[in-house]
Amino acid sequence: MTRDKVCIIGSGNWGSTIAMIAGQNVRKHADAFDERVPVWVYEEMIDGKKLTDVINTTRQNVKYLPGYDLGTNVEAIPDLAKAVEGATALVFVMPHQFLDRCLATIEGHIAPGARAISLIKGVDVHGADIHIFADVIQDRLGIRCSALSGANIASEVAAGRFSETTIGYRKGFQEDGVLWKKLFETPKFKVQLIEDVSGVSLCGALKNVVAVAAGLSDGLGYGNNTKSAIMRIGLIETKNFCQEFFSDVLPETFLEESAGVADLITSCLGGRNRKTAEAFVKTGKSFDQLEREMLGGQKLQGIHTAKDVHIFLEARNRIGAYPLFDKVFHICWEDMDVNTLTDDL
Amino acid sequence: MTRDKVCIIGSGNWGSTIAMIAGQNVRKHADAFDERVPVWVYEEMIDGKKLTDVINTTRQNVKYLPGYDLGTNVEAIPDLAKAVEGATALVFVMPHQFLDRCLATIEGHIAPGARAISLIKGVDVHGADIHIFADVIQDRLGIRCSALSGANIASEVAAGRFSETTIGYRKGFQEDGVLWKKLFETPKFKVQLIEDVSGVSLCGALKNVVAVAAGLSDGLGYGNNTKSAIMRIGLIETKNFCQEFFSDVLPETFLEESAGVADLITSCLGGRNRKTAEAFVKTGKSFDQLEREMLGGQKLQGIHTAKDVHIFLEARNRIGAYPLFDKVFHICWEDMDVNTLTDDL
Repeated sequence: MTRDKVCIIGSGNWGSTIAMIAGQNVRKHADAFDERVPVWVYEEMIDGKKLTDVINTTRQNVKYLPGYDLGTNVEAIPDLAKAVEGATALVFVMPHQFLDRCLATIEGHIAPGARAISLIKGVDVHGADIHIFADVIQDRLGIRCSALSGANIASEVAAGRFSETTIGYRKGFQEDGVLWKKLFETPKFKVQLIEDVSGVSLCGALKNVVAVAAGLSDGLGYGNNTKSAIMRIGLIETKNFCQEFFSDVLPETFLEESAGVADLITSCLGGRNRKTAEAFVKTGKSFDQLEREMLGGQKLQGIHTAKDVHIFLEARNRIGAYPLFDKVFHICWEDMDVNTLTDDL
Repeated sequence: MTRDKVCIIGSGNWGSTIAMIAGQNVRKHADAFDERVPVWVYEEMIDGKKLTDVINTTRQNVKYLPGYDLGTNVEAIPDLAKAVEGATALVFVMPHQFLDRCLATIEGHIAPGARAISLIKGVDVHGADIHIFADVIQDRLGIRCSALSGANIASEVAAGRFSETTIGYRKGFQEDGVLWKKLFETPKFKVQLIEDVSGVSLCGALKNVVAVAAGLSDGLGYGNNTKSAIMRIGLIETKNFCQEFFSDVLPETFLEESAGVADLITSCLGGRNRKTAEAFVKTGKSFDQLEREMLGGQKLQGIHTAKDVHIFLEARNRIGAYPLFDKVFHICWEDMDVNTLTDDL
């Protein structure tokens, strides 16, 4: 039996956390995995030193996950093509805007029999087209790609706080799920498997729209009744949207899994989408300004996903079918009065 | 077509809120309901005056829902037998410990064709027997009894904050659901109907056990990942428990309805069960002491339901089948170390 060779592509907060866990698990399952865990790190300079050198000498990603020992078998590699050399278990965990360039670099350099998993957040929407990144990876590389998503704030997972996640595998390929579970599960990080790559991927994008709605409700000073009603409606709209536009999604993914209901709860309790939307109501500032002030100029995912969803629904002639998603779009992008938030839900 | 005569049995915070809503809706649906809404009020003295007299002159329940006009057609009646005279739509909304006495009083005085609905919280557990109050009412009075439950903090519903609720009706009797929806729904208080009286009733009891677990997690300083994982596990255990021990429950009641997932969320965000459990961990005081200090001597429902569930599962030889419910019981009643909360979930 040949052992799988892992490669982690991406090394931010979440990528480093996942690399640390994978580094421990490949040793625990030495029959299934090669001991070495290369991590592709986008090279940057930290106090005059290369980040990859700092990681490989200190065993810490001092920039994105300071204070955690990644383990001696986790190796930072700045050259992506070299990092993936011979790898049969490719873990994609980077901001989605880098995916295209990464795929261009590694296309044609994939080992035979390789499999992939996407931990990338978001979906790719162009007008009437919507794609999950696991499909983008699968189509470009010609290998099966699973997806992992859940209520997984990286810092809490790294700290060993009890949490859960969901891995969606392709229809008929449970063995992929079993492989990835072996690589990621720990006593404090529980993995559930489900035969649904699309559902797992989509939850992680659409929950941000719901979290914006929850934040608007908080900003208005509405109580927990209203907030939980909005979360419930958001959960059902997420499920219905995915069932309408993706053929193989399972309702359980949304209603019973960590990737669905639990991640939605986490995002509506804390999280930047909720907080920024609350500030939008309370301060009267624009989202542009709040993105600069609260997010260091980063985009607020929830409002951009709401816009993508709106454009998509318009292109599909389905405006009005998802009232909560619509409401978030109109309030955030078209100056609709926020006090109408719960009207006609 | 004869019009239904409503009677509200109970006049606390929730009963008064529901009486106010019913008072408005019987006028809106004058074709379906008699205009008069008698409310049975347990008589007590308020500043030397009878509470019923105060309600009937001021139109406010000054003790349990001050500041809200109940309407001129809502009439407080201290004599229960007189209150239910001729009533065909009986709304039970009192603390469960009074139910038995109420039923004894009205047994044999029920109008022909009468129907009932239970808004009573909790379940009735005696060793290996578990009963929902809607069944208790139905069996004692020989009339069909529906159930209403949801993410419904009375003060928020009374204030007209957007919220939702679920009405479960008996198999094959959707017309009961339609009747009750007409009596209770407003533009800000949305009613969903489902053919599941047991599920609707059980959610409202078991969510308190989950809320205790969420509070313990908060007390331990665990983050939102852990809390949402506990809520997810609690939701699934609630569903599985009800499906194991009640024949007609529907999974949607738990996973999709306000009575299920939304009420569970509300209870785990705010609520006395969550707060008291958090204080238990942070202060090291006993629940006995916390009930005196934080709840004015009232019982904390979640821990008592956890005990009932434990005794029930023991009697049914199913100890171990519901690890989160078990954990709450052992931590709250048997001095198990709270730091083991997430072990073996």
